[in-house]
Amino acid sequence: MKMFNKVVIFGTGLIGGSMGLALKRKHLAGQVIGLSQHKKNAELAKQMGAIDRVTSSLGAARDADLVILAAPVDSIMDIAPNLAKRLKRDCLVIDVASTKEKIVSRLSGLIPNFVGCHPLAGSEKKGIVNAQANIFIGSICVITPIASTKKSALNKIESLWRKLGTQVFLLPPARHDRVLAFTSHLPHAVAFSLMGTIPDKFLKISSTGLKDTTRISGSDQILWSEIFLSNRKNLLASISSFQTKLAALKLALENKDMQRLTKILSAARKKRERLLKVQ
Amino acid sequence: MKMFNKVVIFGTGLIGGSMGLALKRKHLAGQVIGLSQHKKNAELAKQMGAIDRVTSSLGAARDADLVILAAPVDSIMDIAPNLAKRLKRDCLVIDVASTKEKIVSRLSGLIPNFVGCHPLAGSEKKGIVNAQANIFIGSICVITPIASTKKSALNKIESLWRKLGTQVFLLPPARHDRVLAFTSHLPHAVAFSLMGTIPDKFLKISSTGLKDTTRISGSDQILWSEIFLSNRKNLLASISSFQTKLAALKLALENKDMQRLTKILSAARKKRERLLKVQ
Repeated sequence: MKMFNKVVIFGTGLIGGSMGLALKRKHLAGQVIGLSQHKKNAELAKQMGAIDRVTSSLGAARDADLVILAAPVDSIMDIAPNLAKRLKRDCLVIDVASTKEKIVSRLSGLIPNFVGCHPLAGSEKKGIVNAQANIFIGSICVITPIASTKKSALNKIESLWRKLGTQVFLLPPARHDRVLAFTSHLPHAVAFSLMGTIPDKFLKISSTGLKDTTRISGSDQILWSEIFLSNRKNLLASISSFQTKLAALKLALENKDMQRLTKILSAARKKRERLLKVQ
Repeated sequence: MKMFNKVVIFGTGLIGGSMGLALKRKHLAGQVIGLSQHKKNAELAKQMGAIDRVTSSLGAARDADLVILAAPVDSIMDIAPNLAKRLKRDCLVIDVASTKEKIVSRLSGLIPNFVGCHPLAGSEKKGIVNAQANIFIGSICVITPIASTKKSALNKIESLWRKLGTQVFLLPPARHDRVLAFTSHLPHAVAFSLMGTIPDKFLKISSTGLKDTTRISGSDQILWSEIFLSNRKNLLASISSFQTKLAALKLALENKDMQRLTKILSAARKKRERLLKVQ
C-alpha cells in the first residue's frame, strides 16, 4: 500500500516538482496531481514525470490524502480558506516555506491537520526545470509543530521526510525563524551585498573564492525579498551581529593589530571546521 | 630542449609544490630543487614528485635558470639580498604572492630579472599535501610588470604561465592590489566575519548556502592576516564599500521597501550572471 493514495501539489516549481519526482520514485503516492495557475510550468512538470495530471481547480483536493503547499506564500494565503473547506477530514497538509512563524499560525487555524515544514534543499536555481528527485537526500528538513499540531499528523509527516532521505529536526516556528535568519537569510543578504560591491570591470580578475562566496546571490530576487521581509526582525538582528563582527575585523586592520586579526580569523576557521563536522 | 634547465623553488607548500608537479608533468624543467627550511614538508614534496632534491642552502640557486619564490613574504624578504648575490646574470625570478606593490618594488631593485606573478589558484586548503599538478589549468595568473621589468624576462614568464594552463593578465602592481582587494581579499574578510557571526548551536540547521558562502573562511589565519595587512588601505576601502551596500539593503528591510529590496537583489543577481560569463 502506498503511503498516500492521492497527493495534490500546489505550485510545481523547484521544491514542488522535486517532491513529486521523489514521491514517485520512492513509490509513496498512488497519484500526484499538480495544482497550478502556471499552465506551462505544470505541463512541464507532467512531462518530467513529477505529476500525473494538471489542474487549476481546487476541487482536485477534495479526496486528497496529502496536500503540499509549494507555491509563493501570498498565493498559499489566497487559496487557503477555499482549500480548507474542500479537504476531507483526515487530509494532511504541509507547506515548504522558508520562514514559518506567520504561515504556521495562519494555516493551523484553518486546517486541522496542517504541519509546517521547511526542507533546506534546492539551490540558487529555481523552477521546475531544475527539479530533481534526489535533492532531499542527505539534506535537512525542519518541521515546526505547535501546541495544536496533531501528534498523528506530525508522526506521518516526519516519516514522509525521513523516507525522502532528509534528516528531520523539530523546532518551534519562532525558533526556526531565529535560527534560519543566521544560517540562511544572513548568508543570502551578505552574498547579495558582496556581489553588489564588486566593480564590474574587476570581475574577470577573480577566482573560485569570489564565485563560491557569491553563489547564492544568483537566487531569485522576488522570492528572497519576500523571505527577507517575512523574517524581517530576526534578519535585521542577524545583520547587526554581522556588522559588529566585520567592524571588529576592520578595526584590527586599521590598528595593524596582527595578533587580534589572527585571533579573529582563527576563531572563524575553527567554527568552519565545526560546521563541516555537524553538517 | 626543456624551457628551464634548473629550477629552484623556495617554499614547497601548496603553490610551490603544485608548480613543481606541473613543471615536471609538462616537461618544462630539467631538474627541480626544493629550497626549504621545513625539512619534513620538503621531503614530502620530493616523495610526491614535486621536486627532485631538497636543500636548505642558497648555494643551490647559483646555476638556476628560474627561481620561484613561493614561501611566506617575510621569508622571501629575509633571503632576497643573499639570494640576489648568488644568481647568474640571466636567471629569471618570480614570486607568487597575493599582494604585489611592496614585494615587486623591493625585489625588482635587488634582482634584474624579477617578474611579479600572482596565480589565482589553490583553495582554502594549504600545504604540500594538497598540491596538485593541475591546479593552474583554467585558472588566472596576473603578472605585474613595472617600468624596469625586462621585456625578454616578461615574455618568457608569460609563456611559462600559458604553458601551465593559466589565462594571463598583465596589470601594474598597484592596480593588481586594488582589484584583488575587491575580488579576493574582501570576500575573505566577509566570509571570516560571516562564519564568526553564526552561533555555534545553530550550525547544524544549515545547508549548502552557508557552507559555500563561508568556504574560504577555512583558510589559514596567519597567511590571510598577512595578506590583509599587506593590502591594508585597499582592503579597508573595499570593506567600506561593502558596508555601504549592506547598510542599503538593511535600510530597505527596515523600511519594508519591497521594491527597493527587489532592485538591490536583482542588480546583484545580474552581476553574478556577468561574473559567470567572464570567468
